[in-house]
Amino acid sequence: MNENTPIPEINQLVIQAQEAFLVFKQANAKQRADFMHRVADEIEALGPELIATAQSETNLPEARLNGEKARTAFQWRSYADALTNSNILPVQIDTSNPDRTPPKPDIRKTYVGVGVVVVFGASNFPFAFSTSGGDTASAIAAGCSVIFKSHSGHPETSKIMAGAIERAIQKTGLPSNLFAAIATDGVVGGQHLVKHHLVKAVGFTGSIQGGRALFDIASQRPEPIPVFAEMGSVNPVVLLPERLAAAAEEVANQYAQSLTLGVGQFCTNPGIFIAPNDRALPRFLTTLQAQITQAPSAPMLHSGIAASYHKNKADLLAQDGVEVLAEVPATTPETHGNATIATVSAQAFLGNPKLSEEVFGPFGLIVTYDSPQELLAVTQRLEGQLTATLLAEPAELAANRELVAALADKSGRVLFNGFPTGVEVCGAMQHGGPYPAATDSRFTSVGPDAIKRFARPVSYQNFPDEVLPDELKNANPLGIWRTVNGTLTKAGL
Amino acid sequence: MNENTPIPEINQLVIQAQEAFLVFKQANAKQRADFMHRVADEIEALGPELIATAQSETNLPEARLNGEKARTAFQWRSYADALTNSNILPVQIDTSNPDRTPPKPDIRKTYVGVGVVVVFGASNFPFAFSTSGGDTASAIAAGCSVIFKSHSGHPETSKIMAGAIERAIQKTGLPSNLFAAIATDGVVGGQHLVKHHLVKAVGFTGSIQGGRALFDIASQRPEPIPVFAEMGSVNPVVLLPERLAAAAEEVANQYAQSLTLGVGQFCTNPGIFIAPNDRALPRFLTTLQAQITQAPSAPMLHSGIAASYHKNKADLLAQDGVEVLAEVPATTPETHGNATIATVSAQAFLGNPKLSEEVFGPFGLIVTYDSPQELLAVTQRLEGQLTATLLAEPAELAANRELVAALADKSGRVLFNGFPTGVEVCGAMQHGGPYPAATDSRFTSVGPDAIKRFARPVSYQNFPDEVLPDELKNANPLGIWRTVNGTLTKAGL
Repeated sequence: MNENTPIPEINQLVIQAQEAFLVFKQANAKQRADFMHRVADEIEALGPELIATAQSETNLPEARLNGEKARTAFQWRSYADALTNSNILPVQIDTSNPDRTPPKPDIRKTYVGVGVVVVFGASNFPFAFSTSGGDTASAIAAGCSVIFKSHSGHPETSKIMAGAIERAIQKTGLPSNLFAAIATDGVVGGQHLVKHHLVKAVGFTGSIQGGRALFDIASQRPEPIPVFAEMGSVNPVVLLPERLAAAAEEVANQYAQSLTLGVGQFCTNPGIFIAPNDRALPRFLTTLQAQITQAPSAPMLHSGIAASYHKNKADLLAQDGVEVLAEVPATTPETHGNATIATVSAQAFLGNPKLSEEVFGPFGLIVTYDSPQELLAVTQRLEGQLTATLLAEPAELAANRELVAALADKSGRVLFNGFPTGVEVCGAMQHGGPYPAATDSRFTSVGPDAIKRFARPVSYQNFPDEVLPDELKNANPLGIWRTVNGTLTKAGL
Repeated sequence: MNENTPIPEINQLVIQAQEAFLVFKQANAKQRADFMHRVADEIEALGPELIATAQSETNLPEARLNGEKARTAFQWRSYADALTNSNILPVQIDTSNPDRTPPKPDIRKTYVGVGVVVVFGASNFPFAFSTSGGDTASAIAAGCSVIFKSHSGHPETSKIMAGAIERAIQKTGLPSNLFAAIATDGVVGGQHLVKHHLVKAVGFTGSIQGGRALFDIASQRPEPIPVFAEMGSVNPVVLLPERLAAAAEEVANQYAQSLTLGVGQFCTNPGIFIAPNDRALPRFLTTLQAQITQAPSAPMLHSGIAASYHKNKADLLAQDGVEVLAEVPATTPETHGNATIATVSAQAFLGNPKLSEEVFGPFGLIVTYDSPQELLAVTQRLEGQLTATLLAEPAELAANRELVAALADKSGRVLFNGFPTGVEVCGAMQHGGPYPAATDSRFTSVGPDAIKRFARPVSYQNFPDEVLPDELKNANPLGIWRTVNGTLTKAGL
């Protein structure tokens, strides 16, 4: 058996998922939306067992998990509603003109799911970016079937969540293989899934190394397929001098809070803070130091993540010019992520690419700059980011348009006077960014636009009305927005 | 110099294109649209020299070239209009709610060009898919700068077309390096362009071999970039029995016309025709034979294409079970593409993957099937296609929904009782399809949606109105469609 021969169990799994896809793709947007609301109902109906299991598997506190559960159900509902109320998969109709030379045909474009989608869940969001998380919800919304590979960090949580989707499938009479959650043996099983010729797209949330490995496998297939990997980011925060002078303590307090939220285990954690080397800087640093030193030491998601945190942090602290400003004493160093802040000059930062690498956890590096030119050089040195934040007084903002543009060039979301750790689930959210923040900067993994990753357009030319998919029929039976001869309308033809 | 070191001239070219991009990305959609209309004006103003040069370089007739010139200008105009009138790059605004817990931020999403785009032109459309063709127009519409690599088949035509874009740039005061047409030394220069770290996307129209080579280079870069390659397709046409009985001669005439149009040099040329082995089949074949035998022998685009046609055709005719039905005597075999029709049974076709390969030129293979099951097996055997066509009586169509679905599974555009060679430039057009028809089935290379390939979303969170890009400002100064809190509207906030 050569390395491209599918493992029999995996082959069987994918073939069943493909059969389910061929049935499910006959469902119209309204039917898919109805199913998705049922999944949300089932998630909401899950009892205290879910939270207790997730707590024991991830060390995340109850309040956070309850919030994440609500967010997860909301994702299913809002993506479902976007299918029917918004213009997410934009139907276009151009009617015929038999009098033109040559005669103009009737052409109508809709979207279909790409096929079987494989989803790799994240460790840090056991609900919202895992089994029944955003990738699964958006692939189902697009009309795909999903094979979910459970994260080894929370296998029992994954089983409970999979049960919610399975009950919704049962109650709606959809094919049972529309969704399958499996725990394959580490990387190997995952690679075989990605290599299978019937798999048509991959969703992934995790490390650059992991995401890139899947991307390489997928792009080297005889038929390449897209991998939507949301990977690493240091989420730079840039502070301008007048804001520093006006609010040194306030900014320090907010930064400490954002950096240590959830033991720093967010992909939008602000790992690099770029501050002016000004008179007010000591005030900022002193406040930050006090805040960080008081931050409670807390266990990370699992021991592997904690071990990586300590190792990566130590590597970074060992670089020339890096000095520790504050470090929470680690009471249980093997499993806790003790918040740490270090400083480095912009000059040293510019000379050492290692310093712009992500340390996943509550670690912040303060990069101090001496001039606007140095600041711009630092922002230009950064790799692609999920977010970039500017902290400035209103007058400073107006005078720094070039800086705003430079931050937008590097990221998927730019923030003004805020912190990036909250990722709102809404239509306007962009959660993704230039590589290596994500493998494809043209898509988001949060918000209804995430659906677009898993759908492809199909045009129907000169088909009779009764044979067309519902969304293309003259009468517009689904009542959705459509672009008819260039004009957006909900009216029928 | 290792293979990844940029050639100095190419490095300089890309850096200049990047500088132009950074200026051009400040233009809003209306300003980009104005520029695009100027390009269309300049194309329309080109005199008889353009047509004469293209005729001498491509052997295409004057009427066809005049039509293609008008189509090329129309592409610029319709993509420009889509930027401002349609919802092509869909702006979304979700306003804040400070009373919510946690407070809901104000988030607004727009699109920016991905950066420098490299376009490789096609040989078979010297205007519409070349220098000033659809890939260039859609990349400019998205806000990108473009480096165009001229096709060796029509270098002088390319220079004249480049002049039109250059004059539009001059007259509008945009940076002169917004567009550059170059004739690099074959493949090597092109590969270096695709490898350059400041190049962010690639457009390509041509062979599977050429497109895949660029795709592999692009996906193996340290920062992978997308390659939108529109490649090969045999564009299967499926004929059902009742339609055959009702219109054998009409269908044969239409097929002959579509197959030989432009010496078969269209990516939508219907190279495989799947027909029932019925009583009426001889009527169809006899008419087709008569039509093909009368088809005028005509020169192909250049001698290389003609040589490939003769070689690929000979390879295919040498396969077991393939029989020649009609062949135009080749008067000048080295440069002409003499129309040829061969037949093969579905059984032989199913046993030999070679038979589903594209022969670029006026070659048609009639695959005859004995049963609906055999027909379905043949369609399922096909690779991804740009188009798939069903010829059927209305009652047959209604009874063959599964077949329609199977054809849609394989292609980007499905046609009913027509032929695929005309590709309408309109919003509802899908020109692309599952691999190997294209490298990414989720995008089209014809119609305003082609713009989406070259734009990426950026969200702005909590920015003051005056700093936001025009399309995100409260007052909606561009007057475009926007989704505000989930509702499509042109109203301001």
